[in-house]
Order: sequence, then C-alpha cells, then structure tokens
Amino acid sequence: MITARVTVTLKTGVLDPQGKAIEGALATLGFDGVDGVRQGKVFDIELGHDDRRRAETDLAAMCEKLLANTVIEDYAVEIV
Amino acid sequence: MITARVTVTLKTGVLDPQGKAIEGALATLGFDGVDGVRQGKVFDIELGHDDRRRAETDLAAMCEKLLANTVIEDYAVEIV
Repeated sequence: MITARVTVTLKTGVLDPQGKAIEGALATLGFDGVDGVRQGKVFDIELGHDDRRRAETDLAAMCEKLLANTVIEDYAVEIV
Repeated sequence: MITARVTVTLKTGVLDPQGKAIEGALATLGFDGVDGVRQGKVFDIELGHDDRRRAETDLAAMCEKLLANTVIEDYAVEIV
C-alpha cells in the first residue's frame, strides 16, 4: 500500500482573500509580525498497490484532472 | 524572515465527506486502486522576524486559537 500527500497551493501572484482574512484575524488576536498568509489544500491519498512508478503517474494525472486547477494552482506530490 | 508551513488534518476516525466525494470522483474518472482520500488544509505563514523559538511558540498558539479546531483536527508546524 502506498500513501501519498498531495499539496495544492495558489500560484504566486494569485489573490488569496482567505489567506488575507486569516492574516487579519491573527493580527486581531494579537499576533504581530505576521507578514503574509497563503492558504492551500492537502490531500492524503491511499493507494491499494505497491507500484511506485504507477503511483507517481496516477497521482500527477489526478492533480491535473481533479485535485488542482493548474491555471491558478501549483501542486506537489510526496509519496510517504 | 521565517517561513512556516502549518498542515491541519482531520483526526483519525473523524468523518470526512469531502474526502469521500473526491474518492468517488477519482473512481468516476477511472482511477482504480484508490483506497482512501482525506482532505486537509495548509497555511504558508511568513513571519517578519528571525527568532526561531518565538516563531515556534507563536505558531503553536496560532494553531490552538485559530487555524485548527483541536477537537477534531491535528496540526503540524514545519519551519522551512
């Protein structure tokens, strides 16, 4: 069994209102010195086989087709 | 400047309908062999100082107070 973690983050330059809201909330809570917050998504995926090469191909395809919007998002796949 | 990545994931046993929906969508797209998907959140946080110890304390407090719901979620802080 292969476990993978896919991390999807907004590309640099893409506006992140959710991150901005969190930044504001942290300031309100008294955390000074926060210069920026960007929010992304993480997917922990379990695959029922042990073929690492197939897993890499499949996971990249999953990102391209479903998990990430590659126009505005980057993704990183890490097999753990 | 310190950059940190905070990853917030659902605790084991907590129902994840969003993850289940993604699992179903991946099956519909023809990806077989996916045994499970759990979705979480990631926060990339920039701090405007270089005090690593203060950063660790602050980031843990941010998670406890705002970023994670510790009743149902776990968090991990990684200073990069």
